[in-house]
Amino acid sequence: MTRFDPETLKWDANGLIPAIAQDHATGEVLMMAWMNRESLAETLGSGQVTYWSRSRQALWRKGETSGHVQRLVRLSVDCDRDCILMQVDQTGPACHTNRRSCFYTDVAGGQETVTARPML
Amino acid sequence: MTRFDPETLKWDANGLIPAIAQDHATGEVLMMAWMNRESLAETLGSGQVTYWSRSRQALWRKGETSGHVQRLVRLSVDCDRDCILMQVDQTGPACHTNRRSCFYTDVAGGQETVTARPML
Repeated sequence: MTRFDPETLKWDANGLIPAIAQDHATGEVLMMAWMNRESLAETLGSGQVTYWSRSRQALWRKGETSGHVQRLVRLSVDCDRDCILMQVDQTGPACHTNRRSCFYTDVAGGQETVTARPML
Repeated sequence: MTRFDPETLKWDANGLIPAIAQDHATGEVLMMAWMNRESLAETLGSGQVTYWSRSRQALWRKGETSGHVQRLVRLSVDCDRDCILMQVDQTGPACHTNRRSCFYTDVAGGQETVTARPML
């Protein structure tokens, strides 16, 4: 074990890093969003996943209004230290379309197909 | 089903989109890298995952030199059309450190811990 220094991560030109959320029980990849230093610190400190909303330019405490929170189970960084992977305990849908995962559109053979329905 | 138009994806200012590779059998997230239009077209056309290397500024046919190829099993886009998720059949390690996954460093309690050993 060594001390974790967030400054060793490769924050991009906007001070952001991509973060993938995966269902800790099923392995389903739920979403990918972005974190800044503040959202990573809040996620690690509170155990509630917090992103940075690039569209709103504001901290995005996942589920704060919807109740569809992500409790952090495990957080890893990759070999290049430029991506975060989280195992989460997701309440309800992760997607704003009320689907469990944001990845519900498959592409193959030049066509795309919606593969999941809203949960709610 | 509708026709898939790559121009409907939200390519970033550099013409790139993040792409996550997940082991199709175990659900393990192996890596995250970037694609440009050409690498996505090649991936969909050939069934062999090809990224764009930002460091080399060149097409990166995964496994071309190492043999650690990724055969595409399934490709999805997310609700915002700004991220790609692939189910892949990974030969050997996905990581350049010869670990199966690039996400082998866990962060918790202000410490980081290496959780996997090289396969080779």
